[in-house]
Amino acid sequence: MHYERPQFFHVMQYAASADRDVVDMVSGNPDWEPPTALRDGLREYADASPDEFQYPPSEGLRELREEIAARRNVDADRIVVTNGTGEANYLAMAAALDRDAGSEVLLTDPVYPYYPGKTELFDAAATLVPTERDGSIDPAQFREAADEETALILVNTPNNPTGAVYSRETMAELAAIAEEVDATLVADEVYDHFDFTGEFESALTLDSDRVIVTTGYSKSMAITGFRVGYAVLPDHLVDAAKTRHMLVNVATSRPPQVAVLNALRETGPDYYADVRAMLRERVATFTDALDAAGAEYTTPDGAFYVLARFDGFPGTMANAKRLIDEAGVAGMPGETFGSARDEWLRFALVTPRAEEAAERLVDYFG
Amino acid sequence: MHYERPQFFHVMQYAASADRDVVDMVSGNPDWEPPTALRDGLREYADASPDEFQYPPSEGLRELREEIAARRNVDADRIVVTNGTGEANYLAMAAALDRDAGSEVLLTDPVYPYYPGKTELFDAAATLVPTERDGSIDPAQFREAADEETALILVNTPNNPTGAVYSRETMAELAAIAEEVDATLVADEVYDHFDFTGEFESALTLDSDRVIVTTGYSKSMAITGFRVGYAVLPDHLVDAAKTRHMLVNVATSRPPQVAVLNALRETGPDYYADVRAMLRERVATFTDALDAAGAEYTTPDGAFYVLARFDGFPGTMANAKRLIDEAGVAGMPGETFGSARDEWLRFALVTPRAEEAAERLVDYFG
Repeated sequence: MHYERPQFFHVMQYAASADRDVVDMVSGNPDWEPPTALRDGLREYADASPDEFQYPPSEGLRELREEIAARRNVDADRIVVTNGTGEANYLAMAAALDRDAGSEVLLTDPVYPYYPGKTELFDAAATLVPTERDGSIDPAQFREAADEETALILVNTPNNPTGAVYSRETMAELAAIAEEVDATLVADEVYDHFDFTGEFESALTLDSDRVIVTTGYSKSMAITGFRVGYAVLPDHLVDAAKTRHMLVNVATSRPPQVAVLNALRETGPDYYADVRAMLRERVATFTDALDAAGAEYTTPDGAFYVLARFDGFPGTMANAKRLIDEAGVAGMPGETFGSARDEWLRFALVTPRAEEAAERLVDYFG
Repeated sequence: MHYERPQFFHVMQYAASADRDVVDMVSGNPDWEPPTALRDGLREYADASPDEFQYPPSEGLRELREEIAARRNVDADRIVVTNGTGEANYLAMAAALDRDAGSEVLLTDPVYPYYPGKTELFDAAATLVPTERDGSIDPAQFREAADEETALILVNTPNNPTGAVYSRETMAELAAIAEEVDATLVADEVYDHFDFTGEFESALTLDSDRVIVTTGYSKSMAITGFRVGYAVLPDHLVDAAKTRHMLVNVATSRPPQVAVLNALRETGPDYYADVRAMLRERVATFTDALDAAGAEYTTPDGAFYVLARFDGFPGTMANAKRLIDEAGVAGMPGETFGSARDEWLRFALVTPRAEEAAERLVDYFG
C-alpha cells in the first residue's frame, strides 16, 4: 500500500525554517480568539472530579450529541463525535466503502489533498471530476463519471481551496446521482460558519438516506488543535461508523468535548458574525493588492482561502518555496490540490498580516 | 466486513441502568486522583494564546516527544503520539499488516477483546495461543503457531485480564520468533506503571528492529478520557504509522498533550508508588474475601484486575448480568476474553468500594 502524504506540513516546515521573516498563509489555522466560553469550559473542567477524567461514551458525550442533535434537527443516535473533521471523513469514507458497493471515489478537481490520501488508505480509486472556472460544480460531469463502481461522492462546501459554495440544487443532484448508482454522498461542511453568500444550506436538509454530513469546530471556534468534529450518518451506516470509531480511537478526547459543549451553549451568533466580517475585510484588502500585482484570483463565497495566479509563476512546490525565500510569503502550491489549479497558489487568510503579505506580493510581482 | 464490537460498554450500560445499587468493577477507569500537575497544565493552557489552540505537529508536540524520548532512551523520530493506546495499537497493527508479510495475527488466550476486534477491522485472521494457568506465556506455543502467514504477534504486559507480567526472556523469545517468520512483535505496555513484581522490563530494551511498543497515560495518570498514548516503532515502520495517523486523525488533541507534558515533568515517583501501594491493598482485601467466598482467583503481578471463578457460575454474559441484578456487583464475563477463561469473571479494582463488593460476593456465593 502506498500513501500519499499531504504536503501542508512540508510547506509549513519549510516556511518556519526560512532565513527571513515569512507571512504564513499556508495552514488553515485561524489566528483569532476562540469563544470565551471555550476557555471557561476548559478552566472549569480542570477542577472536575476524577470520574469526569475517564472515558466518555465512545460515540461522544451525551450532552454534546444532544446539543448537536437539537441544533441540526437530527436524531442524536445518528451522530458520532470524532477526533476532528478529519476522523469524521475517515469514518464516513469507510462506511461508504465497506458496503461492497464499488471502490471508486468521485472527488472534485481541485481537491483537498487529504481526500485522495484517505482514498489510497482504503485501497480505493479516486477519480477527479473537473469543476468550473469559478469553482462551482456541474452535476452533469458527476453523472457522466458515476457508474456501478462508484461507492462514494465526496465534496467540500464551502470549498477549500476554491471558496465556492455549492447550491442546494447541486447537492440534491449529487445525492440523486449517488442514489442512481448505489453510492453514498459525503458533504464535508467544516467551513459552514464561513458562508459569505447567506445562501449556504447544509446537506442535512436533503431528504435522502444516501447522505453523510461531516463537520467540526476546528474552524468555527478557531481550535484546529482541539480535534472535535462529528459525522451525521443515515441509520443504515451509523453502526459501522460507531464500531470503527471505537476500534480505532476508543473515544474522542474528553476535555475538548467539554470545552466545545460549553462554547456551543454560551456563544451567541455575534461571535461568528464578527469573524465573518473580519474575514470579508481581509479578502477585500488582499484581493485589492492582487489587482495591483496584476494577478488573476478567486473571490471566495465561503471558507477563507484565495486562489491566485501570477503570470509565468505556476503553482509548483518549487515556486512556493521560492516565494517563501524571495518574497517572504508562504502559500500552498496549487499542484497539491489535484491538476485543475496547478497554475495557482492558495493563500489562507488566517493572519493579521494578510495586508502586509499582499504588499510583499505587489513588490515581488508588480 | 464484519466487526466484533467490544462488550465493555454493553455491560457498563446494563450496570448503570440496573434498579439497584451496583459496584462497578467493569471498566478500566481509575477512580483515584490524576497528578496535580496535570490539572495545573490544563488550567494554564486555558489562558494560552490562540496559536497554541491550533494543530500540533501531526506526530505529537515536539516537547512531549522529546520528554518521552529522553525517558525511554529512544530516538524521538521513532515516536508517534496517538489518541490513546487504542490508536497506538491500531497504527502498530496496520504497520505490521501493511508489510505484505502475511495476514495472521497471533494473540494470547485469554485476550483483550479490542485486539481481535481490530484484527477483523484489518480483514486479518486472529489465532489465539493458549497461555498457562497462571497467565504466563510459553514461547514454544507461539513458535508452534507461527508460520510464514504470521504478520504480527501482539501481547499485553502487564496483562489484562490475567495480571501476568511476562519476563524479559519471554519477550526476547517472542521477538526472535517474529524475526524467524518475518513478522512484527507489538508489546502493549499500557499497565507498565502497575508492576507489583519490580521485575517488569519494557520490550524497548530488546535489541530488535522487529518490536513496536505501545503505551499511554490513561492508566498511569488516571485519565482514560484524555486519550494520550504513543507508539515507538522501528525506523522501517515509523513513516507508515505517521502517515496513517495523519490521514485518520490529522493529529492528537492538543490540550491533553499539554496537560500530560506538564504532569510528566512535574510528577515524582511517589505519585505512582502511592497508587501501586493502594492497589496492592485492594487486591489483598478483595482476594481475602474471595477466599471466604470459596472462589478460585488470580493474584495479579501487574495491572489492576482479578480473575475469579465461582463453582457453577461460569463467566457468561448472562451470569454477569445476573451478578449485577442479584449481588450488586458488575464484572466482565470471562467469555468476552477469548475461550480460555469462560469459567471466570474479571473484576477491575478501580473503585474504593472493592471491599464492599467483595462482601457482597461472599454473601452471594458464600
